Amino acid sequence: MSRGCFIALEGGEGAGKSTQARLLADALISRGIDVVLTREPGGTPGAEAIRELLLHPPGEGWEAEAEALLFAAARSDHVARLIRPSLDAGKWVICDRFVDSSRAYQGGAGGIGDEAVKTLHRIGSGDLRPDITVLLTVDPAAVTRRLKARDGGRSDAIGGRSTAYHTTVAETFTHIAAENTDAFATIDGSGSPNEVHARVFSAIEPLIGRRQ
Amino acid sequence: MSRGCFIALEGGEGAGKSTQARLLADALISRGIDVVLTREPGGTPGAEAIRELLLHPPGEGWEAEAEALLFAAARSDHVARLIRPSLDAGKWVICDRFVDSSRAYQGGAGGIGDEAVKTLHRIGSGDLRPDITVLLTVDPAAVTRRLKARDGGRSDAIGGRSTAYHTTVAETFTHIAAENTDAFATIDGSGSPNEVHARVFSAIEPLIGRRQ
Repeated sequence: MSRGCFIALEGGEGAGKSTQARLLADALISRGIDVVLTREPGGTPGAEAIRELLLHPPGEGWEAEAEALLFAAARSDHVARLIRPSLDAGKWVICDRFVDSSRAYQGGAGGIGDEAVKTLHRIGSGDLRPDITVLLTVDPAAVTRRLKARDGGRSDAIGGRSTAYHTTVAETFTHIAAENTDAFATIDGSGSPNEVHARVFSAIEPLIGRRQ
Repeated sequence: MSRGCFIALEGGEGAGKSTQARLLADALISRGIDVVLTREPGGTPGAEAIRELLLHPPGEGWEAEAEALLFAAARSDHVARLIRPSLDAGKWVICDRFVDSSRAYQGGAGGIGDEAVKTLHRIGSGDLRPDITVLLTVDPAAVTRRLKARDGGRSDAIGGRSTAYHTTVAETFTHIAAENTDAFATIDGSGSPNEVHARVFSAIEPLIGRRQ
């Protein structure tokens, strides 16, 4: 049995990652592929408990360093207990956010730097990389509309940060993708979910024949 | 105002760290020193929430990598929000366990290695080191008696690990102290609390004149 394919979806808040992850999972399942659909932070009981601490901090909120360490801890559990065993069992794993979110949020916008985030990923998760990362890009006005429609403007400890923070997140994602064009598909996230799905699927489809 | 003095107490389970930390705090307070008595993991609301995850894991228990990242996250919050501000305000900080516990438990006994733990401490806490670390050593039979008297043999996810694990912890502590004799006081932890306190205090007393 060959190893499964590991696909991450990345992008800022409201880019449509969760919707596209679900549509992609459905499309792959309908082609007979065994799919694990998961998300970060979370995906295992331990990582979900850490997610709760990250999105609803018990104290005054986390500094960027503690936040990066918590994300790396959650990812370590997620990789060890769900992602690696699933890939080894030949399943495809679709993950809503992975390490590049930490690079964009804590590394870029949070200011702890890319090298620190990469070091935490090496220590915590043996430097596991997705086979392909889909980066969904959307224009800021569309994001604002989507977020308002989704939760009436409420947000968690990270989603609620400043426009400058989220602008740096978007810029860092673009920079990371530009550095690794072979492992990234940068997809225009504007339009209806089905329109975006068609673009995402055409980027993933070539992997199906190769892997099975 | 001069910076306060940072004292850590280290040692295995049942070595008497908490008791000695309290007795040392009382002795320093009675000499007019402003003391903050704290512990790890914990010491701040965020770090105490992480402590709960560490000692009572929500899933199958943490692998060594996730555990080390969680300890480093708790320490990062503790250093940023309590230890550094207290030292900067001229207070003395007495901490029941600090980074050398991570080096002994996750680095040595847990197997992730000393370099990884030191790297996490550099990223998370700017490599802050105690001015002096008191390492309490006790013979294993005495520890077994103390732990039984304390909690009827119950223990948490870390205290309850194998004898081999705790033996490696003790050996790693001894090795760390031997490498840094200037910053360590290795104290025989056998005898009554007051007998041990007298030994601890004689190691700390020279710092009082120097600091005030």
